[in-house]
Amino acid sequence: MGEANYKAAVIGLGSMGWGAAVSLLNAGIETVGVDVRQDVLDKFKALGGTSTTSPAEAATGCDAVMVFVVNAEQTATVLYGENGAVGAAPRGCVFLTCATTPPEFAEQIANRLSESGMQVIDAPVSGGATKALDGDMTIMASGASTAFDKAKPATDAIANKVYRLGDAPGAGSRVKMINQLLAGVHIAATAEAMTLGIKAGVDPQTLYDVICASAGQSWMFGNRGPHIIEGDYDPKSAVDIFVKDLGIVSAEGNRQDFPLPLTETALQQFKAAQDEGLGREDDAAVAKVYAKRGNIKLPGQD
Amino acid sequence: MGEANYKAAVIGLGSMGWGAAVSLLNAGIETVGVDVRQDVLDKFKALGGTSTTSPAEAATGCDAVMVFVVNAEQTATVLYGENGAVGAAPRGCVFLTCATTPPEFAEQIANRLSESGMQVIDAPVSGGATKALDGDMTIMASGASTAFDKAKPATDAIANKVYRLGDAPGAGSRVKMINQLLAGVHIAATAEAMTLGIKAGVDPQTLYDVICASAGQSWMFGNRGPHIIEGDYDPKSAVDIFVKDLGIVSAEGNRQDFPLPLTETALQQFKAAQDEGLGREDDAAVAKVYAKRGNIKLPGQD
Repeated sequence: MGEANYKAAVIGLGSMGWGAAVSLLNAGIETVGVDVRQDVLDKFKALGGTSTTSPAEAATGCDAVMVFVVNAEQTATVLYGENGAVGAAPRGCVFLTCATTPPEFAEQIANRLSESGMQVIDAPVSGGATKALDGDMTIMASGASTAFDKAKPATDAIANKVYRLGDAPGAGSRVKMINQLLAGVHIAATAEAMTLGIKAGVDPQTLYDVICASAGQSWMFGNRGPHIIEGDYDPKSAVDIFVKDLGIVSAEGNRQDFPLPLTETALQQFKAAQDEGLGREDDAAVAKVYAKRGNIKLPGQD
Repeated sequence: MGEANYKAAVIGLGSMGWGAAVSLLNAGIETVGVDVRQDVLDKFKALGGTSTTSPAEAATGCDAVMVFVVNAEQTATVLYGENGAVGAAPRGCVFLTCATTPPEFAEQIANRLSESGMQVIDAPVSGGATKALDGDMTIMASGASTAFDKAKPATDAIANKVYRLGDAPGAGSRVKMINQLLAGVHIAATAEAMTLGIKAGVDPQTLYDVICASAGQSWMFGNRGPHIIEGDYDPKSAVDIFVKDLGIVSAEGNRQDFPLPLTETALQQFKAAQDEGLGREDDAAVAKVYAKRGNIKLPGQD
């Protein structure tokens, strides 16, 4: 196999990072997984991977380092903090920064990585845990073509679609930011629609079936609607994530002095869910904010 | 053909009513079209239909009367006003009320029609002008099964999908209302996303292509996004329509004391567009509100 001597590291084995790391192993690539949770590291080792809590140890001798931590602060820490990956990675190693971060941060960290002699792709991802496990995530990527060449064995293993959004770091994160704007507004709109339907006496499953085939459809309505109908708030993606991601969009709007009224409104709904102690529940739990204020019972609520 | 002696009337030959009337003719059904605009009546006559400005004249001897005017007030007028259809229709004629109206109104007018000896289906439609012309609209329908039987030749001619939402009038309009909540929020969200993308320097077509394949996708983003990218605000559906339809949703929220923050926010954006003189432009022109406030130029703006 062409990947015989290729070595990759995945820092952060959350739902997307875990899927990426497993997909790399499935492609026959030597892969080191990094996390702070020992049980996850043990599980990765049992699958044939190498495990460590040290980004530096993982990056040693690597061709590609993928950073799947949750935000900008953690990205900076695993790259340049204590036992950071950059100090140990060989010159020319390609770094993929995959967390959803402010576009400005994506640019800054890319410039810093370049100054450190590394290649870099601004590479936020989309697709959810199931697609990640199947090697089918989507990458919204920008960076130099030499970086894409260097990363190809790894990106081939984890993604079925890599959108090439130009040479400049930041472009990937800008598109991801807009995607999250829509995704977050649509999740809150799904909750608003389903709960008003319940209040008005419409059967939720019938409503779901009609809307999915009508002009009110969205990917999020199709995906999160069943969580509300089934009363299943086991987190596929948590409320906290959208407080963070819509917070990034909101901050960008403020920075650019650009009005984002729907973003701000949806963000307030997710923050209200967080205030209700629902931060770690599935993001569809924003429906519980509507249910409480509107005095209705959701499916599964007694 | 089974429809040999079947006679239908379509009151209101706007984009959806026109499509319904043409589809009825195409199915070989004797059809009378009603409108206030003589040029539209002439056009319908040229296609082989019968034309009149009088709902009463149109309803005489009819099996099915479809009311495609734009709102509740016009619906009441064409049914019970001067030259109203109900006074002239034969006993047992089926009326389909197809305008988007408050669910309460749909219930009241259905009860009144029943008291007048008529059959009735609460039958708001979806799908747009192109599908309407092809006989492929969707009907969100509720009413007695005898009414559906009586209407079948007509509904077979105009729709490819009739959702049966129970016996009670109002159920169809409730589902349509929820659909319009989502559709309206998604159009405004499309505008918010596309304009922030432009502000941030993202190429609109690239953004569109990525989002359509990602979790931020919606039917409205897919449909209205190109209007913004091409600067085409020729009205397929106008800003005024969503001021009306989100107004219905908002009023229902107030009536039920149910919080609808995204609906209210989107409604304000459409009202702002109306205030800018854009009421008759395509609803995607809500993007111009964002562009003005955010100080950017949209495609097609100099």
